[in-house]
Amino acid sequence: MSQRLTIALDAMGGDKGPDMVIAGADIARERHPQVHYLLFGDTARIEPLLAQRPALRAVAEVRHTPDAVAGDAKPSVALRAGRQSSMRLAIDSVAGGQAACVVSAGNTGALMAMAKFVLKTIPGIDRPAIASFFPTLRGESVMLDLGANTECQPENLVQFAVMGAVFARTALNLSEPTIGVLNIGSEEVKGNEVVRAAATRLREMPLPGRFHGFVEGNDIATGTVDVIVTDGFTGNVALKTAEGTAKLFTEFLRRTFQSSWTARLGYLLARGAFKRLKQRTDPRRYNGAMFLGLRGVCVKSHGGTDAIGFANAIGVAYNLAANGFNDRIKEEMQRLADAKPLPDTKAAAV
Amino acid sequence: MSQRLTIALDAMGGDKGPDMVIAGADIARERHPQVHYLLFGDTARIEPLLAQRPALRAVAEVRHTPDAVAGDAKPSVALRAGRQSSMRLAIDSVAGGQAACVVSAGNTGALMAMAKFVLKTIPGIDRPAIASFFPTLRGESVMLDLGANTECQPENLVQFAVMGAVFARTALNLSEPTIGVLNIGSEEVKGNEVVRAAATRLREMPLPGRFHGFVEGNDIATGTVDVIVTDGFTGNVALKTAEGTAKLFTEFLRRTFQSSWTARLGYLLARGAFKRLKQRTDPRRYNGAMFLGLRGVCVKSHGGTDAIGFANAIGVAYNLAANGFNDRIKEEMQRLADAKPLPDTKAAAV
Repeated sequence: MSQRLTIALDAMGGDKGPDMVIAGADIARERHPQVHYLLFGDTARIEPLLAQRPALRAVAEVRHTPDAVAGDAKPSVALRAGRQSSMRLAIDSVAGGQAACVVSAGNTGALMAMAKFVLKTIPGIDRPAIASFFPTLRGESVMLDLGANTECQPENLVQFAVMGAVFARTALNLSEPTIGVLNIGSEEVKGNEVVRAAATRLREMPLPGRFHGFVEGNDIATGTVDVIVTDGFTGNVALKTAEGTAKLFTEFLRRTFQSSWTARLGYLLARGAFKRLKQRTDPRRYNGAMFLGLRGVCVKSHGGTDAIGFANAIGVAYNLAANGFNDRIKEEMQRLADAKPLPDTKAAAV
Repeated sequence: MSQRLTIALDAMGGDKGPDMVIAGADIARERHPQVHYLLFGDTARIEPLLAQRPALRAVAEVRHTPDAVAGDAKPSVALRAGRQSSMRLAIDSVAGGQAACVVSAGNTGALMAMAKFVLKTIPGIDRPAIASFFPTLRGESVMLDLGANTECQPENLVQFAVMGAVFARTALNLSEPTIGVLNIGSEEVKGNEVVRAAATRLREMPLPGRFHGFVEGNDIATGTVDVIVTDGFTGNVALKTAEGTAKLFTEFLRRTFQSSWTARLGYLLARGAFKRLKQRTDPRRYNGAMFLGLRGVCVKSHGGTDAIGFANAIGVAYNLAANGFNDRIKEEMQRLADAKPLPDTKAAAV
């Protein structure tokens, strides 16, 4: 069942621009028939694409924008000079209530800067975070922050934990998600002041989930917890290290199957099974990084994705908007505000 | 050709204790016939094992030690209370000149604390770092620090870069290793103050290699650079995330081959090729983390490894000691000292 709501799309974002976005919206339309789309971008490029897709045309409205944010634009420059860009006007439509959420495959830094500026943070949240799903041995986990905040205070990590747990409840449908703070050992004495202070606080406060304690890098893939909390520097390195290792493995596997005639024959026999494995680990399945903590749902699609990946990112945005994700975060932040405040930890992480 | 030198072994370290260490030393003996071993540990447990290995017995000397450091001992406690432990006395033998290097599969934190205390750092090195090899698409790379220093100043990263490059020259036989600083983007403006200040310094100073600039998590597996420099927190998370992802992939592969009869048959045909892949990615190949920056070669073997893995760790120690690795570091640090000092960056990484 699809709920009736409007999704704003930055039609100019991504390596393959409007073509990919429109094709992705068409796939999403089949999955969520009642959704309406606001497409922000260059009408001259968007309209011909829509003309080929009458079913999408029927549920879409185009808003012409004269500018587009460049993929390599500095966030501060995009924020200042991009007021008439497709990205900015798509975000504005969420702030203005015309759309329930926004999806863009454009410049991550610019999107975060604009979304923060336009949508503002939820009361009680100091900094928004980027969250995404990861495949694990047990299913799927959520990790945040993946790059929005290179330096964090304990209170930021605590807020990420709350947002991540609400996200796991909403998007993964878990009643009591487990939460872990990423560290370099599981003992309480390990790590730096920031993670230790965050863990101390998380141990004693009411949470929309259960605090597990510290987890290590290998726990991400094991699926030891449902929500992995970390600063944006470590999270970004972990995310990309995992992606790089998966690629290395895939390449080793390819070479293995090509190393002999019997190995090639073996591949032919196992091909069906490998196709299923590929689907299971398809990065497009995990496309759609959420900006959590803003007064509006904003989802970042990978810039290099295709229509299927973009449709998945739209699905994530739809899911969050339809399930009142932000209202749930607000409630939890209120609960957190009613609880004991965290002592000052300025000495941390020098 | 094996050079005549003496290697001290902590016979009590590791999950499988003396059995694994003695069996590993016997394998290493075949590879380096001229090496002599000093085995530190409980004579009553070591002698019966040696009695079964007369060739090793002939090149080994046992030094009885009444204590052993527990795997879960706090480093500070081990340092204070472990003065008669096998680990400590093995390190002492390097400081005293009886052995050229020491290998232990025991408690990492205790080993680092003792090695730092007993061996002291090389002039110009403020903090030692843990380094290890990684398999990459191009071959092998070195990453440091992997967990000794959770918080770093720019000057620490600069010193790690120098040590890592000398290490790559010595252990990987590269004439001009490339060096990258791990960050969350390749642009100069990305990341935090610490990595930016370190990169600024590395761009302008004389190095025993070529400074490439920033690299990201996915560059570790790609092999974009030969030496990856990072703080011990990020490095440890990246190392374990890569290990976890590799395990996840292996498990997915196992399930894939068992998912149907044709897939099983396919595996049987490709089995030989997979055996070679397994050897290529065998963690035992990459066993042996080096403590760089100390006035003595100290190698940490994985605690859970077997005799083959331990023999590889001995091989790493042998290689460093036989090639005068520490003398090379000293020379480079002298060069570094003669160059312009790094400006103070106390404001970094809060």
